[in-house]
Amino acid sequence: MFDAARFLKDLNELRQIGAYKTGVHRPTYSPQDMASRRWLMDRMAEVGLVPSIDGIGNVYGRHPGPGPHVLAGSHIETQNQAGWLDGALGVVAGLALARAGLPVDVAAFADEEGHFEGGFLGSKSIIGALSEEEIDRSRSRNDGTPLRDALAAAGLAGLPRMQLEAGRHKAFFEMHIEQGTQLENAGLRCGVVTGIVAIWQYRIVIEGMQDHAGGTTMAERRDAGLSAVRLLAMLDQEFPRICGARSTWTAGRIAVEPGAPSIIPGRAEILFQFRDVEVPVLERMERCLLAAVQESNRRERCAATLHIVSKATPALCDAATMAALDAAAEARAPGLWQRMPSGAGHDAQYIARLMPVSMLFTPSIKGISHHWAEDTKEEDLALCGEILCDGVGQYLGAGG
Amino acid sequence: MFDAARFLKDLNELRQIGAYKTGVHRPTYSPQDMASRRWLMDRMAEVGLVPSIDGIGNVYGRHPGPGPHVLAGSHIETQNQAGWLDGALGVVAGLALARAGLPVDVAAFADEEGHFEGGFLGSKSIIGALSEEEIDRSRSRNDGTPLRDALAAAGLAGLPRMQLEAGRHKAFFEMHIEQGTQLENAGLRCGVVTGIVAIWQYRIVIEGMQDHAGGTTMAERRDAGLSAVRLLAMLDQEFPRICGARSTWTAGRIAVEPGAPSIIPGRAEILFQFRDVEVPVLERMERCLLAAVQESNRRERCAATLHIVSKATPALCDAATMAALDAAAEARAPGLWQRMPSGAGHDAQYIARLMPVSMLFTPSIKGISHHWAEDTKEEDLALCGEILCDGVGQYLGAGG
Repeated sequence: MFDAARFLKDLNELRQIGAYKTGVHRPTYSPQDMASRRWLMDRMAEVGLVPSIDGIGNVYGRHPGPGPHVLAGSHIETQNQAGWLDGALGVVAGLALARAGLPVDVAAFADEEGHFEGGFLGSKSIIGALSEEEIDRSRSRNDGTPLRDALAAAGLAGLPRMQLEAGRHKAFFEMHIEQGTQLENAGLRCGVVTGIVAIWQYRIVIEGMQDHAGGTTMAERRDAGLSAVRLLAMLDQEFPRICGARSTWTAGRIAVEPGAPSIIPGRAEILFQFRDVEVPVLERMERCLLAAVQESNRRERCAATLHIVSKATPALCDAATMAALDAAAEARAPGLWQRMPSGAGHDAQYIARLMPVSMLFTPSIKGISHHWAEDTKEEDLALCGEILCDGVGQYLGAGG
Repeated sequence: MFDAARFLKDLNELRQIGAYKTGVHRPTYSPQDMASRRWLMDRMAEVGLVPSIDGIGNVYGRHPGPGPHVLAGSHIETQNQAGWLDGALGVVAGLALARAGLPVDVAAFADEEGHFEGGFLGSKSIIGALSEEEIDRSRSRNDGTPLRDALAAAGLAGLPRMQLEAGRHKAFFEMHIEQGTQLENAGLRCGVVTGIVAIWQYRIVIEGMQDHAGGTTMAERRDAGLSAVRLLAMLDQEFPRICGARSTWTAGRIAVEPGAPSIIPGRAEILFQFRDVEVPVLERMERCLLAAVQESNRRERCAATLHIVSKATPALCDAATMAALDAAAEARAPGLWQRMPSGAGHDAQYIARLMPVSMLFTPSIKGISHHWAEDTKEEDLALCGEILCDGVGQYLGAGG
């Protein structure tokens, strides 16, 4: 039996660790983050799992009984001054499944949020896709601290990194907030995820010439900020022509140096990313970006260079797990659920390399995410917890 | 007689105060800046002027003999980690005129560089255009220190603020580096300035909605960064249609918040300015900017607001002073000088409200300005010093 009251109590208890306004601030490996990992290990022990923490900060609660097992979880750290449910929801839902007596291992994967270069450190590590060299190189995006130093300060240096046991799990289930308004706008209470988009990320550096804004004529200038504006305006024109129906693209950072009123910017940096669930669409968008940078270099006096930051692979959800969740959702909330892709990246996309994965979305109030005001109605949290519990039970019972 | 060796020696001595690489770092009212003001007062006394410093930091050397007098000078503080000649050149040239026996008062006006909000504090103050309330309100653009606190820390609090004596000066002469490449590119060694452009400065704030870059569809977004790009691209299209032949316009700062790869920018801020020597052209550019912001608000989902930061008045140079400098330049460097407007703002634009003004430009190597690598050949410095000295002598002799 799914204990909704206890599920909500756990979520609210975890919310106190690193509380910030109505949200939380638990950057990866911070004292607050490590306190939340210790809290989680205590809860795991309470529900009968065998808790452990590994050398990258993954917290794992192993079910001691016989299989077949499923794996459930998400991440427990947050973006800076962000919401109380992002990540935490999937981890606490895993605890609730174990409490309900299901044969589930529960995991909290470290640094899904990417406070450190690379991101998804925990889910990459546990599938064997994170090398020691990558750990050596990675630094905090917040303050430049080397990952090794942060691990040592958190007391994790020297601990072994756990790997998923081959063949142990039939599937992975991750419950998460939608981080958008599609469910809310459609008046729905639950989403069964069909796949997780891949994010392809780029850094564009434009080199011009820093000069006095008064003494330098328009004809003489090499204004890196202006070249950046023209390139971004070109992408804004071209991307709609080649993108997919649900593609997104974002210039999250546009920075010019030195950024003073009377100085022509000598350098500009753009962080650009796009997302889609289909590789051919991602490839079209990358070709468009390459062509735009090439065209910029043909037209402009400033040299633009494109650096690939990361290119992930889209992860499709498993048909049998989706069918089990569909049935549970229709039983608990008839007509009030839908299938939908996930526009955000999640740990499930890495776990999908080793086993079938599935995700369940709760609505996000006003779609607010990565902000302390992020929230979901408690009745939606409870309902989706019940749907997840039913769905996992049906999946295991059906011999999925 | 103009003593070129002594002129260069003074410049090189002043260069040691706050030396940074091959340039200097003397922000207004810093210990280095105050040391340079004390150094200047000693030099003034040496050349027979009566030195004083006032409550805004203006250093003034009064010629003790009979008139008619001229005023010469510039500023002595520098931009952060900037060049050795910007400002210092005009002040030290004033000393050289006094040393040559000309009836000149020499002034170093405080904070032409605008380390404090408002900028041009000294030249505004000495013409009676800086109120106590403006001083109360102004803060450091570097670190937010109130101007009053900075004046107190520099030992200037409570000193009276000097005013120019009505009718004492026939004209003001300011020698300055060009801060551009027009002289260098044309193979010229001296510029007689026809006028100083006015700078009109604006801050544009664009308010969108910060959201997760994955969970928010393109149709739902209110991306403040993208609206900023479209507005700047529109200005890039429209300004060439209405500007003057020598107008310049610059977006020196383009900043988006929070500036993270996976977060849709919720806010953007642009510092935008334009410059011209003609008021009707400035007014056309302002109308164009207003129309673009209005059009942005019609098209975009993000609200753009335009804030006026400052609007200066262009200052035209005086015909008689220009004629005297023309003749001196042609005698010393036949065919190697030109008339030209100043694209940068200078103290002379404020002094012009009380008397005829004139400026003489030396070439800037590669046009580098507001950077420690700023430089001018010593033979050009010496030549322009001689031209200035001859020109002032001719102007006074002609009864200009």
